[in-house]
Amino acid sequence: MRAMVMTDFGGPEVLVLQDFPEPDCGPGDLLIRVHAAAINPVDCKTRMAPRWGDRAPPMVLGFDASGVVEQVGSAVEGFAPGDAVYCSPSLLREGAYAELVAVDARVVARKPETLSHVESAAIPLAILTAWEALHDHARIQTGERVLIQAGAGGVGHFAIQLAKAAGCTVVTTAGYPESMALCRDLCADEVIDYTTQDPVEAAGSCDVVFDCVGGEVFNQSIDCLGVGGRLVTIVPGLPGDQINKLFGKNASLHFEFMGSAVMHERQPETQAAILAEVATLADAGKIKPHVSRIYTLEEIPDAHRQQESQRTLGKLVVGMT
Amino acid sequence: MRAMVMTDFGGPEVLVLQDFPEPDCGPGDLLIRVHAAAINPVDCKTRMAPRWGDRAPPMVLGFDASGVVEQVGSAVEGFAPGDAVYCSPSLLREGAYAELVAVDARVVARKPETLSHVESAAIPLAILTAWEALHDHARIQTGERVLIQAGAGGVGHFAIQLAKAAGCTVVTTAGYPESMALCRDLCADEVIDYTTQDPVEAAGSCDVVFDCVGGEVFNQSIDCLGVGGRLVTIVPGLPGDQINKLFGKNASLHFEFMGSAVMHERQPETQAAILAEVATLADAGKIKPHVSRIYTLEEIPDAHRQQESQRTLGKLVVGMT
Repeated sequence: MRAMVMTDFGGPEVLVLQDFPEPDCGPGDLLIRVHAAAINPVDCKTRMAPRWGDRAPPMVLGFDASGVVEQVGSAVEGFAPGDAVYCSPSLLREGAYAELVAVDARVVARKPETLSHVESAAIPLAILTAWEALHDHARIQTGERVLIQAGAGGVGHFAIQLAKAAGCTVVTTAGYPESMALCRDLCADEVIDYTTQDPVEAAGSCDVVFDCVGGEVFNQSIDCLGVGGRLVTIVPGLPGDQINKLFGKNASLHFEFMGSAVMHERQPETQAAILAEVATLADAGKIKPHVSRIYTLEEIPDAHRQQESQRTLGKLVVGMT
Repeated sequence: MRAMVMTDFGGPEVLVLQDFPEPDCGPGDLLIRVHAAAINPVDCKTRMAPRWGDRAPPMVLGFDASGVVEQVGSAVEGFAPGDAVYCSPSLLREGAYAELVAVDARVVARKPETLSHVESAAIPLAILTAWEALHDHARIQTGERVLIQAGAGGVGHFAIQLAKAAGCTVVTTAGYPESMALCRDLCADEVIDYTTQDPVEAAGSCDVVFDCVGGEVFNQSIDCLGVGGRLVTIVPGLPGDQINKLFGKNASLHFEFMGSAVMHERQPETQAAILAEVATLADAGKIKPHVSRIYTLEEIPDAHRQQESQRTLGKLVVGMT
């Protein structure tokens, strides 16, 4: 099959379109014909890493997929060839920058009926991250004040929508006119322009802060937190020098790592359950992925360059047809 | 009234037995005749602090009380003079090292019927801390593996009992023969001697770690945490250099500060609800305070010295009769 193969660790140029062996469909797997995949920051980090667990190039990245079931593993129930599905393939197996991907059936759900494959592929990894951060870690409640740091990004723009769907007051930060416009379009209640406003002053005291930026913004996030507040971060390499401020607030700090459920075999079926609920929300018009650009399989190196620019609105998607 | 007054910030010698004005019983207060008070580490920290919020000596410490209602504020319902009660008086008002203490009625509960005032006074602040840490922050579940760092201390010995009452497997650390004996007596499932064993190796992978020690033990606690684990700490001045390890574990870090509910007027009535539930557990024999020594009001400076020795088993109590 055709695949965009990571031939070595390094810059975008290590991604080369090649013929690659079709993945085996294990007894617990679904083999999915990929109609669309998406780009995530973790793709670029994996590519630039000095190593990636036990895995070594050549390997195929791509941790979002929307497509059609081609083959059903012998132990799998509830799926049939022809089903339109979406999922986040495991970080530990070959990914979705390819014509076919094999995925543990326990993480797969029917794709939203009202969305295209391109739109559906934009959803899984980013929304699973936002969902786990807001619902499993922070346990957001109706009426709470929730600050999303970087609301126009891949994870952030879903976080705004999930928090709104849960009945929260959503405050978000953005730094470009088009980012602010997207946040407003997604019905964020307050949009803070961090280039002209002090986010700590503007955000006030929040019940929950979801930090998708890290570094100095992590320390700012601590200052935006009210008593009993919950701070969730998805960005490694945090400065730890301000964490003692969290005592006076009786607060908590949550480290969201989306892959861990699957990687450590901790109830991977929760991913399918979340994606099924998200499909219902999407079909009800309550979740809308923002796809800012569609690439072909061949153009994935360009998509990586755009992802690394840190100026991507919503998601970059790879259309396979 | 007679009170052990903190006449200045400083060593135990600043505590002087004096005549002190009786506290006013405000409309929302209960005036309690103190039969017993208890010593907590926060008493010593307050005494040694360069300052304490807006408060200044002369002031009365003592943040645990068991006694009898002497007077009921005009707006208070559900209490009558003569009721035997226990509570943790606010850090922001005059405390219980005195014959009388005035307390917001919303934090007061009936004392356990089967326990003496001395035993009851040992309970409030420490068990509220352990309860909020384990139930509100870590949300311990039946069957989970819970590590209590320093299980023989004031907070730790209640934490062991609460986690056992919740059906957890309880692992704890201790460093002296008498500490280990107390932990075993409280039915800890595994007692790690940290002077001869490596706690990280011995504890294995825990769902919840409750760190009552801080410093290097905080970093050890991170290493004892399994995937999806929750680490709760009550010790300020934490090193922050290891927190990024919590990402790979999809873990959370909780900063328990018992006084915050009352200090910030965030549902102070939850304190009374917890203490009422604890009284039921105590009367059922499931919570047993360990009082290692009883002091008189005059002997409080000695009690502070003992508390600061860091070798106190369970609680030090002040009997007022």
